[in-house]
Amino acid sequence: MCRWLAYSGDEIFLEELLFKPENSLVEQSLHATEAKVATNGDGFGVGWYGQKEIPGLYREIMPAWNDCNLQHLANQIRSSHFFAHVRASTGTATSRANCHPFAYDNWMGMHNGQVGGYEHFRRPLEAHITDEHYAKRMGTTDSEALFYMLFKLGLKRDPVNAIRTMVEIVTSLQKQYHITEAFRCTMAITDGTRIYCLRYSSDRYAPSLYWRHQDGRLVVVSEPLTDDHTDWNKVPESHILIANRADVEEIVAL
Amino acid sequence: MCRWLAYSGDEIFLEELLFKPENSLVEQSLHATEAKVATNGDGFGVGWYGQKEIPGLYREIMPAWNDCNLQHLANQIRSSHFFAHVRASTGTATSRANCHPFAYDNWMGMHNGQVGGYEHFRRPLEAHITDEHYAKRMGTTDSEALFYMLFKLGLKRDPVNAIRTMVEIVTSLQKQYHITEAFRCTMAITDGTRIYCLRYSSDRYAPSLYWRHQDGRLVVVSEPLTDDHTDWNKVPESHILIANRADVEEIVAL
Amino acid sequence: MCRWLAYSGDEIFLEELLFKPENSLVEQSLHATEAKVATNGDGFGVGWYGQKEIPGLYREIMPAWNDCNLQHLANQIRSSHFFAHVRASTGTATSRANCHPFAYDNWMGMHNGQVGGYEHFRRPLEAHITDEHYAKRMGTTDSEALFYMLFKLGLKRDPVNAIRTMVEIVTSLQKQYHITEAFRCTMAITDGTRIYCLRYSSDRYAPSLYWRHQDGRLVVVSEPLTDDHTDWNKVPESHILIANRADVEEIVAL
Amino acid sequence: MCRWLAYSGDEIFLEELLFKPENSLVEQSLHATEAKVATNGDGFGVGWYGQKEIPGLYREIMPAWNDCNLQHLANQIRSSHFFAHVRASTGTATSRANCHPFAYDNWMGMHNGQVGGYEHFRRPLEAHITDEHYAKRMGTTDSEALFYMLFKLGLKRDPVNAIRTMVEIVTSLQKQYHITEAFRCTMAITDGTRIYCLRYSSDRYAPSLYWRHQDGRLVVVSEPLTDDHTDWNKVPESHILIANRADVEEIVAL
Repeated sequence: MCRWLAYSGDEIFLEELLFKPENSLVEQSLHATEAKVATNGDGFGVGWYGQKEIPGLYREIMPAWNDCNLQHLANQIRSSHFFAHVRASTGTATSRANCHPFAYDNWMGMHNGQVGGYEHFRRPLEAHITDEHYAKRMGTTDSEALFYMLFKLGLKRDPVNAIRTMVEIVTSLQKQYHITEAFRCTMAITDGTRIYCLRYSSDRYAPSLYWRHQDGRLVVVSEPLTDDHTDWNKVPESHILIANRADVEEIVAL
Repeated sequence: MCRWLAYSGDEIFLEELLFKPENSLVEQSLHATEAKVATNGDGFGVGWYGQKEIPGLYREIMPAWNDCNLQHLANQIRSSHFFAHVRASTGTATSRANCHPFAYDNWMGMHNGQVGGYEHFRRPLEAHITDEHYAKRMGTTDSEALFYMLFKLGLKRDPVNAIRTMVEIVTSLQKQYHITEAFRCTMAITDGTRIYCLRYSSDRYAPSLYWRHQDGRLVVVSEPLTDDHTDWNKVPESHILIANRADVEEIVAL
Repeated sequence: MCRWLAYSGDEIFLEELLFKPENSLVEQSLHATEAKVATNGDGFGVGWYGQKEIPGLYREIMPAWNDCNLQHLANQIRSSHFFAHVRASTGTATSRANCHPFAYDNWMGMHNGQVGGYEHFRRPLEAHITDEHYAKRMGTTDSEALFYMLFKLGLKRDPVNAIRTMVEIVTSLQKQYHITEAFRCTMAITDGTRIYCLRYSSDRYAPSLYWRHQDGRLVVVSEPLTDDHTDWNKVPESHILIANRADVEEIVAL
Repeated sequence: MCRWLAYSGDEIFLEELLFKPENSLVEQSLHATEAKVATNGDGFGVGWYGQKEIPGLYREIMPAWNDCNLQHLANQIRSSHFFAHVRASTGTATSRANCHPFAYDNWMGMHNGQVGGYEHFRRPLEAHITDEHYAKRMGTTDSEALFYMLFKLGLKRDPVNAIRTMVEIVTSLQKQYHITEAFRCTMAITDGTRIYCLRYSSDRYAPSLYWRHQDGRLVVVSEPLTDDHTDWNKVPESHILIANRADVEEIVAL
């Protein structure tokens, strides 16, 4: 289980959300409160849109709480649209390529959760990645596979449908391979403008996912950044939150 | 606050203590139970005596729970005398040189605790290190400074007295610089045969320190390795445990 | 292009070959003389057989010349059968999982060279890996794929034939995908007792490969470890050197 | 010996100088042509001024040619004033804290060269650092010591004089300790607006240092970034180049 954060709104320094809040994402890397594992110390990453169409990525295998470079970058880099992720490995290696977010062209994605039985159907799952995208796959995680699958499933034309189909493929593979472990996930995808955030589980124990819209700023996050949860809304299970920059347009059932 | 372990006895694979016990040292890196901080993820190290007079060292800046090399080494390396340490930084950088144990010639040392006000009297403290040893200082921690100080204070002739003098120097510097934070420490020193383990605090809140002698094997450790604490003895505050290989010879008042 | 070394013979400290010779493997990491690229600084690895049937592995993403842990380990660890490798990446990420040697059960393998067009037929190449082995694939390199393929091709029954078939599969895929870049490789495989060293290229520019048998010690290596090349024999192109521990039994044509 | 680059002028993406030129700084990390050692693979760093008074730092222990994060950051970060450095260690450990540039408040510095005999007079050299700055010293290199010394020597009031006095102190310590190895250095210091670049040696073998002013852009660099050296001027031995942003104001004798 990992923890992540998606932001869209005014241009802010990354540290505003990564370091400053009471329960900032970096704080969650050390003491997550709503996760199965409290420590998310198996690497981290941040991806942000700046003056170019493609996002920048900074991913590192050290714990986020302990990375002086991250402090500097979060203090210097401003962005109006960014993702950040702290990782608790569920078995795959700790390498930069296995850290989130993943990026391809102008798209970016990140994930939290478990794909029960992944080791049993990794190759048939990867069969849903096009050759073009498979050649770019640098890591070995289920998360990166899910990200690249979406492109073949029509991400650019109809993201919600691509996400739905991805969920169907995973659950269908789990049946086919007689997997009893659940598929649980929260996932965020963006093209640099719109954000799609899925909360799903095959067994009604989806990882937590919250959002807050305040002063023109949208934050979607695994756990509220403040001890006071008043302003935070839950994304319901089996729903996708869709935002156009900071505006939450819809929260649709899967 | 860090967690550490010292072993002497039959030759065993390192994994016997680092990975296999219920509350193994690597488990403590993720979930320490008797420490101020539960996570000891800011690097780790192991130092062992093999077929040479000088010990081998493996120190790494990643969390111990997540290092595939450590698993391999602990599975392959046998030793009858070794130290291991998982680190929670109290402010200094995460670098291999700041990870414990420290080694010099046939000597090895490691430390857990805090030297309140270290940043205010780092240089006068370092003045107690000989030029010869200062030239070997590769890191910047208080722990490494304490280790190198001991040589000037007569470690090779009279280790117990060297440790006593070291404690006096630190507490005396704290007075001189009007430091109100405490000096708390557990520390282990060995020449490859004898082990000296100090438990001390200036305010009666010394970090925990336990030892167990069983089947010819001595383990001194920050926290018991088993959930059942029956066989574990506490080292009293302001005492030094002295062992000749696996034999506990004395537990002397400081 | 990487540089590697395979040893079998009396038990020696790893440093005897990794650090001490004039043109030691670590020296080659900084100044290879017979390679297309002089610097092999994109990670390294060592795999050795000790008291267990399975080998130990130490792989790291830093340059070998600069790794204090490697110095310690090479100074402490003795083995009568080991592999070592310094890496120059040909495109894939620098991660521990992409460093050689690779190990599976009691087997170990490492590789130097290029699989021209790998990015175009990575998936059909991987189709020659069994599901069991694919689940263990932690990296993304061509080298690791070749290693795991061998098991499906009968490595345990007939290693020479498995290697031959592997070469045929790669060259056949290159034809099928109209790749004009060559397949060039040297590769070493061992089960802990026998060593199989392939030197091959599809265009008569195979990477260099030498062997020396002296005082009951066999060394197979990308470049001679001494400036004087007198005692070093070349493995001919398209041949496999087969050794039973330190005894070179045969050098067979592919 | 290391290689470095200082830039002031229009805001440009860092990659314009770090990656794009024929003989870019990252290229120099792999193949320096005018250095004693060709490979500068022992870490690197970049420090840039953005929207804050203090600079951002990104320093890493991997080789620069091999760091995917550096590619991303250099592609995204724009600055009108930045330093970059690739390191070849002369003995001290490879850690982030030992990578250049060093920063303190709005100041930044970096260094290339050797302080002959440093290990013999490290402590008396460090005695020229104020307690305030000594507490911030995170590494153990001669370079970082020289940087912090400058503050005590009046860097903020009279930088040229501080640099002169620093040179005098080092050469005087070398005499006092009967060191026969030379003091050779190039060094760059900035407060975010003005740049001071020293080229010095005690034996007339100062490391190379070039500058180019073109289209309102100043680059000072260990080696020309282009194969054509026409537009590049040498900084003479024992001189300090002084620039106010992109304007070279003076090149004064030491």
